[in-house]
Amino acid sequence: MTTKNIITPRKLAGFMELMPSKQVLLDGMKRKIEKIYSSAGFMPLDTPVLELGEILFAKSGGSIDKEVYAFKRGDSEICMRYDLTVPLARFVAMNSDNLTFPFKRFQIGKVFRGEKAQKGRFREFIQCDADIIGLDELPIVADAECLYLVDEIFKAFNLKILNRVSNRNILFGYCEELNLKEKTSDILIVLDKLDKIGGENVLKCLSDLGIEVEKGEKLLAITSKKGDFEDVISSIENLSQNETFQKGVNELKELSSYINAYGIDKNNITLDLSIIRGHNYYTGTVFEAIIPSHPEFGTVAGGGRYDNLAEYFTDKKLPGVGLSIGLTRLFDLLDQNNMLPEFNETNATLEIIPLGDTLTDCIRLQSYFSKEIKCQVNYSARSFKSKMKEANKKGVPYIIVVGENEVQSQQFALKNMTTGQQNLLSKEECLEKLKNI
Amino acid sequence: MTTKNIITPRKLAGFMELMPSKQVLLDGMKRKIEKIYSSAGFMPLDTPVLELGEILFAKSGGSIDKEVYAFKRGDSEICMRYDLTVPLARFVAMNSDNLTFPFKRFQIGKVFRGEKAQKGRFREFIQCDADIIGLDELPIVADAECLYLVDEIFKAFNLKILNRVSNRNILFGYCEELNLKEKTSDILIVLDKLDKIGGENVLKCLSDLGIEVEKGEKLLAITSKKGDFEDVISSIENLSQNETFQKGVNELKELSSYINAYGIDKNNITLDLSIIRGHNYYTGTVFEAIIPSHPEFGTVAGGGRYDNLAEYFTDKKLPGVGLSIGLTRLFDLLDQNNMLPEFNETNATLEIIPLGDTLTDCIRLQSYFSKEIKCQVNYSARSFKSKMKEANKKGVPYIIVVGENEVQSQQFALKNMTTGQQNLLSKEECLEKLKNI
Repeated sequence: MTTKNIITPRKLAGFMELMPSKQVLLDGMKRKIEKIYSSAGFMPLDTPVLELGEILFAKSGGSIDKEVYAFKRGDSEICMRYDLTVPLARFVAMNSDNLTFPFKRFQIGKVFRGEKAQKGRFREFIQCDADIIGLDELPIVADAECLYLVDEIFKAFNLKILNRVSNRNILFGYCEELNLKEKTSDILIVLDKLDKIGGENVLKCLSDLGIEVEKGEKLLAITSKKGDFEDVISSIENLSQNETFQKGVNELKELSSYINAYGIDKNNITLDLSIIRGHNYYTGTVFEAIIPSHPEFGTVAGGGRYDNLAEYFTDKKLPGVGLSIGLTRLFDLLDQNNMLPEFNETNATLEIIPLGDTLTDCIRLQSYFSKEIKCQVNYSARSFKSKMKEANKKGVPYIIVVGENEVQSQQFALKNMTTGQQNLLSKEECLEKLKNI
Repeated sequence: MTTKNIITPRKLAGFMELMPSKQVLLDGMKRKIEKIYSSAGFMPLDTPVLELGEILFAKSGGSIDKEVYAFKRGDSEICMRYDLTVPLARFVAMNSDNLTFPFKRFQIGKVFRGEKAQKGRFREFIQCDADIIGLDELPIVADAECLYLVDEIFKAFNLKILNRVSNRNILFGYCEELNLKEKTSDILIVLDKLDKIGGENVLKCLSDLGIEVEKGEKLLAITSKKGDFEDVISSIENLSQNETFQKGVNELKELSSYINAYGIDKNNITLDLSIIRGHNYYTGTVFEAIIPSHPEFGTVAGGGRYDNLAEYFTDKKLPGVGLSIGLTRLFDLLDQNNMLPEFNETNATLEIIPLGDTLTDCIRLQSYFSKEIKCQVNYSARSFKSKMKEANKKGVPYIIVVGENEVQSQQFALKNMTTGQQNLLSKEECLEKLKNI
């Protein structure tokens, strides 16, 4: 006889792996997102997990970020995707002749980043993206549609959010107005930190950039504006006649009218000029949603408008707007805070327990019930008593015990495991009852 | 102005990437499988795409198969999973104290194999696995449940299959009976080729193994048995009193009674002793389903019983039985043979087309309809005429054109794009009609 080497089973650090009773809940959230994206006419896309390094890093001339999982295979440098946006750009550029624009696609899939493992950071995580890509032009109503999707999704999750919206053209134009155009991107980096470091420190950082005190205060003042769309817009619209600034104002006005038309609850959305978002490619609308009861969760959904999705892959102009939800992190936070709905471990509404030699009869029943409800037979070789104990422990909501009598009479005592109540019913009556739970 | 380098967009060879109109169909098939697994009480599992090399290749002492995508990260050899079975073994071994046995899990996910690219072979493909794992013991009814799942899934796909079932103990025991025990695995490799190379060549190969002609003919004769379970069983059960052989006979008898209880159509399932399956770890029931109208598709679902799932990770005995469907390949075959159902490119049941300055009114309607049906507004800046053309081209089943009159009257001409018929209806009446399609 050979002796086997037993290897201690372990998984890689930084990778989420849920017990099935939790996985059911994550899958449910995924399905809700999918349904909402589909309902608004978005179509699914599933790009490969692996892409060529030269494609994923076209922007940086092929130099691969060290956080990305990359490896050589033959002559090719192959990478695991780190987001769903570059693959979308590649797909649209490859297939633009066969797509109808605006092209509305969603993709729910895993992306990979080999970051340092730490609490709340995952190296593999599910992104739920929806984007709308236009050819040459894309109206502002598309931006409103993204805000609508965010609102619908969190309503479906029963989570109250605040979606904070801005338009980058406001600050772009205002920097021009103040003759600070060449410093715009440094200024935005500083202003983006307002929430974290506070106004005093923002002023200090702006001064470190060589910006006069008076201009710094003006920048801080405008960035601090937040509240109702109409109020904020009317309080800033005369601050500058700069063209970019006025473009921002007009886009916000238009956006605001569509937000109303979509029926987004005014309590769930706000204009907040401190929202900037890190990504350099955003060029207009930007937004970040938080859960006000748990600000420590940070941004739970975000996105914005970009001028040109696929500039590294095609000469066609493809403006777009999109949103992204990091589901793995969101799920982890909800789980830690006991904000996930309760659920049964077994995934079965009904468990059938054989008593005596009735297994084949139980299976007949299972195949009858399974057509419409979740049903399983406990066919383990353990004793009847331990099966009853297990059903309790697993939290099965309903059971039927099938012995010789039940087989003869075709009447089954359907037991509600929560209340202990039993009803003697035919299988048709059982199904009718369980279908309506 | 900087000039950008345009990189020709391309994806890796051997990776499936569907247009969204096809992706919808693939997603639909995935959802059906998920529903059937869930209905029988299976719970979802989602293991990471990446695993440690020492775990995936525990069996071969850590030596990594060259087809597997592997790379170094720090001190670790990391691999992309090449199946869903080893990760399941790792998971069950790690969590066995917190699971209720029999543990019924399903996993639908991508696996990766860097094989030579060729038609019909994919380097990334979706596997749809369901397994039932027992602790110490697992009754034969579990094997029947797997056959039931296969049958239900292909019924849901509207595809007529033939599931060919055998039990390896028959040939194991028969080799013993013929005093060929030490040559069993070589013999099985030869007999497994019967379908491909035919009886004459099987006899030749057996003779090459040094097996006497008479014994070779006996092996060929038993392997060629196929048909109704009862008929085949009664034609072989007296061939040997060998213990393993009789174990196989008894397991097949028991399996047959459960197959009847599950109500699997007799035309969809057959006992076929030529089914052996390549994997060494199968120890009892084995099965392979084909589509008889398209034998060239090969095996579209397969699986079997194994004695010990996680022998490299734990001393616990964990017998199991499972099935696997290679969805990517199946989808590709169905697609090539025009066996996929038809579908609209837009994913929307209703498209709303603004005429004049009615966009916000259209959005109000969209947000009303989207709660219950798939609906989108064509808000592109193109002309009304080209929007009408697009709706036709995209194959949207219903449209509403919304001009000033419609906004005033709140009566909308719901146009069936297939028949050309129009009905003047309120939005409530439109929804009622579209909901019932």
